[in-house]
Amino acid sequence: MKKTTLLALLLIGSSALYAQKTDEQVLKEIYKSALTNSTCYSWLDHLSNSIGSRLSGSANAEKAVLYTKGEMEKIGFDKVYLQEVMVPKWVRGEKETAYILDNKTKTTVPICALGGSIATASNGLTAEVIEVHSLEELKTLGTEKIKGKIVFFNRPMDNEQIESFHAYSGAVDQRYAGAKEASNFGAVGTIVRSMNLRLDDFPHTGAQSYGDIPKAQYIPTAAISTNGAELLSKTLKNNPKLQFHFKQSCKQYDDVLSYNVVGEITGMEHPENIMVVGGHLDSWDLADGSHDDGAGVVQSMEVMNIFKNLGYKPKNTMRVVLFMNEENGLRGGNKYEELAQKNKENHIFALESDSGGFSPRGFSLECDAVNFKKIASFTTLFEPYLIHSFVEGHSGSDIGPLTSKKIVKAGLKPDSQRYFDYHHAANDKFDAVDKRELELGAATMASLIYLVDQNGIVE
Amino acid sequence: MKKTTLLALLLIGSSALYAQKTDEQVLKEIYKSALTNSTCYSWLDHLSNSIGSRLSGSANAEKAVLYTKGEMEKIGFDKVYLQEVMVPKWVRGEKETAYILDNKTKTTVPICALGGSIATASNGLTAEVIEVHSLEELKTLGTEKIKGKIVFFNRPMDNEQIESFHAYSGAVDQRYAGAKEASNFGAVGTIVRSMNLRLDDFPHTGAQSYGDIPKAQYIPTAAISTNGAELLSKTLKNNPKLQFHFKQSCKQYDDVLSYNVVGEITGMEHPENIMVVGGHLDSWDLADGSHDDGAGVVQSMEVMNIFKNLGYKPKNTMRVVLFMNEENGLRGGNKYEELAQKNKENHIFALESDSGGFSPRGFSLECDAVNFKKIASFTTLFEPYLIHSFVEGHSGSDIGPLTSKKIVKAGLKPDSQRYFDYHHAANDKFDAVDKRELELGAATMASLIYLVDQNGIVE
Repeated sequence: MKKTTLLALLLIGSSALYAQKTDEQVLKEIYKSALTNSTCYSWLDHLSNSIGSRLSGSANAEKAVLYTKGEMEKIGFDKVYLQEVMVPKWVRGEKETAYILDNKTKTTVPICALGGSIATASNGLTAEVIEVHSLEELKTLGTEKIKGKIVFFNRPMDNEQIESFHAYSGAVDQRYAGAKEASNFGAVGTIVRSMNLRLDDFPHTGAQSYGDIPKAQYIPTAAISTNGAELLSKTLKNNPKLQFHFKQSCKQYDDVLSYNVVGEITGMEHPENIMVVGGHLDSWDLADGSHDDGAGVVQSMEVMNIFKNLGYKPKNTMRVVLFMNEENGLRGGNKYEELAQKNKENHIFALESDSGGFSPRGFSLECDAVNFKKIASFTTLFEPYLIHSFVEGHSGSDIGPLTSKKIVKAGLKPDSQRYFDYHHAANDKFDAVDKRELELGAATMASLIYLVDQNGIVE
Repeated sequence: MKKTTLLALLLIGSSALYAQKTDEQVLKEIYKSALTNSTCYSWLDHLSNSIGSRLSGSANAEKAVLYTKGEMEKIGFDKVYLQEVMVPKWVRGEKETAYILDNKTKTTVPICALGGSIATASNGLTAEVIEVHSLEELKTLGTEKIKGKIVFFNRPMDNEQIESFHAYSGAVDQRYAGAKEASNFGAVGTIVRSMNLRLDDFPHTGAQSYGDIPKAQYIPTAAISTNGAELLSKTLKNNPKLQFHFKQSCKQYDDVLSYNVVGEITGMEHPENIMVVGGHLDSWDLADGSHDDGAGVVQSMEVMNIFKNLGYKPKNTMRVVLFMNEENGLRGGNKYEELAQKNKENHIFALESDSGGFSPRGFSLECDAVNFKKIASFTTLFEPYLIHSFVEGHSGSDIGPLTSKKIVKAGLKPDSQRYFDYHHAANDKFDAVDKRELELGAATMASLIYLVDQNGIVE
């Protein structure tokens, strides 16, 4: 090779060198790097075991901001910075208590306040219970039958669904809007069956909204474990006059300042085109949030770690974005889009990992038919890695607000069967994440980003 | 419909009625039955939590024979029977102990005897250690360097492999043949790094064989946890003269009588053609064997339970076979084939589930190209259930010996990433199996069996 040619190549940078490798070769290197030389699992260990739960506005959430910023600085991004964002601050307070009072028999059941709920009175709330299976059923029953009672939403997630997220979508309206709707009919509180396909003793928290009802009409709302829901339903059948008692002391504070964490590598050929990969840094407060969404955070960071290990310098500008407040406000995702608009940025691609750190199966894609076809054409490249599923569908909540002239949005699709065993519950802990499954997810994400970076999208 | 037609249909039985349904409809019913109306998880609960580990020749193995026979009788097979088979009886004895003696520092490490190993002397075995990474390396070192020492086989399973079973195949020769080979060079014992991709504290047992060396040359052999192996290797680098001590009191007894458990439904159209579905009833002794192979046992039983729930009467004769002694002898699989030959049976299909109760991904098939093509043509029917992988490869150990004029053999392929976290170790317990993943595996098996039953194989 002539000296001048070598020099020219060095000047063009490594994407030209990478052009000499086949996509098959690069994907092989990506998976090898993830499985033998990755940092994501130890990042997750720190986030989960040294920091812990990271609810928006909490001290831990701020620790996570500083920690991930510091780690991203070590990877060697061109720049790492924070985006200021005001977030809600809701605090659970003392551990909740609840029991069923069936004549004189008290049976304790596991509950947890839903995010954003108000507290009960300090001595708790005790009332009769009316069981319903949908928001619509409230209208049929009417104020007469609901007033003064605790409404118990008990429609289970549908076990027939193959994708557990479909089962979740089909049931979560009870959690999100149950309190608001029941309040309109005079209910004094609501209890919702946990969003969990399994029968167990974990109550699962999650966002709820009082919508536009007046503050005076806010009623306390909590989730009950699936076993607890079964018991309550069974006991109600024998004694429709039983009483339910629960006590929670949660509180909504004023919004506080927090941050999205952003790491950026400037593109070698099209620095004006931005590709985003991210997850959300906040979690619920009951556990580490290792699957939701510690996994997505560390996988997104790992994508850049892999590129660095491989010496790959992308054509387009790459951004790792660790969004704040996905769980109860989506303020981080909205702020990111607001700033992108303000700075007239051109996003061509965004990938989110927020479906757990399980074995990757494929991607769900939000884009036009031409780009879908283009991305689906990568299928054969992914087959050796057992990635088969390229489907149209929701990509991710944090990248949801993102608009651009032309953008392809994707969500990593891991195996979904066990996700709702852990989702928003006290068992979403580090030990529930398998190292290889986490790493394979990161490799799968890096592979798609590499292929899109090399091949572009159809504008 | 004319009365005579109806009568004719009733006489032909339900496979004719099933012919009026599309395959899509039947698969939908199969998955629905498995996810909403199955018994496999509670069978596994009993096998794992009420019976427990089921090593061949143990009292628990016999309990499992009686329990599964009884449960199969409840399902309503045409006949349920036992096949006598003599099996090895190896007993671990007292829990093993081991330590590294580095000058005067003793560090305890977790080990377990390999199946079939002899005991150490009653006060244990203490010797210097030589670390090797392959059987071949023994030859290079020769008797001079090996004699009187404990050989420590420490080649890890290859993390670069995507399928964990490939990583297992690439490392397990050290466990299976390490003691025999090392003995030939005068070693006094062997320690093998556990077959586990993860770094943890569980030693993983498994079969080993002294082959044809004289009994006087048998040496004790044990597995060490992966963390223990890392520590031993690191300590050896600093002090090649360190001593390793281990003590085990395992013993091989005379063979004892045991059984394969067989449940049979006579085919409506081709009773002479037999289709087998099975797993192995025995397990290692360190845990419940919930993944290996409690899962395969209850999934095989569930296939027939699904057919019963759906009122499906197969064209060909169906047999659920719960094989005894897969782990340390394969006597059950060999006996089944011996009897099949003796009775001049015609097996057209066999499916084994022995890769854990994880999310199903597809099948590995052993058959000729014509039948492979035929089965792979079912792919689109399986796509809604996220079953994508139809590959050529090993089907199952128990159905391995089975020969017939023309036979298609298949193995259920679940996601393999976590399998070796549990394989042959004390954590292979009921809680490690997810109910939905187990049920989806059973539905996937029932679907393939239904399709082969309807469409036949190419003779």
